[in-house]
Amino acid sequence: MKQYQIFVTGKQGIFDPAGKTAQNALDNLGYEGVADLKIGKFIQLSCDDSVSPEKVKEMCEKLLANPIIEDFRIEQTGA
Amino acid sequence: MKQYQIFVTGKQGIFDPAGKTAQNALDNLGYEGVADLKIGKFIQLSCDDSVSPEKVKEMCEKLLANPIIEDFRIEQTGA
Repeated sequence: MKQYQIFVTGKQGIFDPAGKTAQNALDNLGYEGVADLKIGKFIQLSCDDSVSPEKVKEMCEKLLANPIIEDFRIEQTGA
Repeated sequence: MKQYQIFVTGKQGIFDPAGKTAQNALDNLGYEGVADLKIGKFIQLSCDDSVSPEKVKEMCEKLLANPIIEDFRIEQTGA
């Protein structure tokens, strides 16, 4: 069984409403010093040994991320 | 400026509808061999040097994660 971790983040310059809202909320709660907060996706994938990293990249491009507004990074964590 | 990465994941046994939907969609697209897919949050935090890891943990407990159904892990990536 292979394990992959996928990090999906908004591209530079794309507005992140969830992150901005959380940042404002932290400010309202009295937490000072937060300069920037971005919220992306953290995907954990378990799959058969037959699934190659290239296949996972394809899954990201087609479904798990939106390549127009998001970047993604894939890490294999277990074989 | 300090940089933190926060990984928010559903606790064991908590149903993850987004993950299940993505897993089914991959199956429908013809990607075989995906045994499990979980979707969590990947938060990138930039803050002043005055913000300690303990403070970030507190932010997670109070706002960024829901400790009832989610676990979180904090990594400091830059000083």
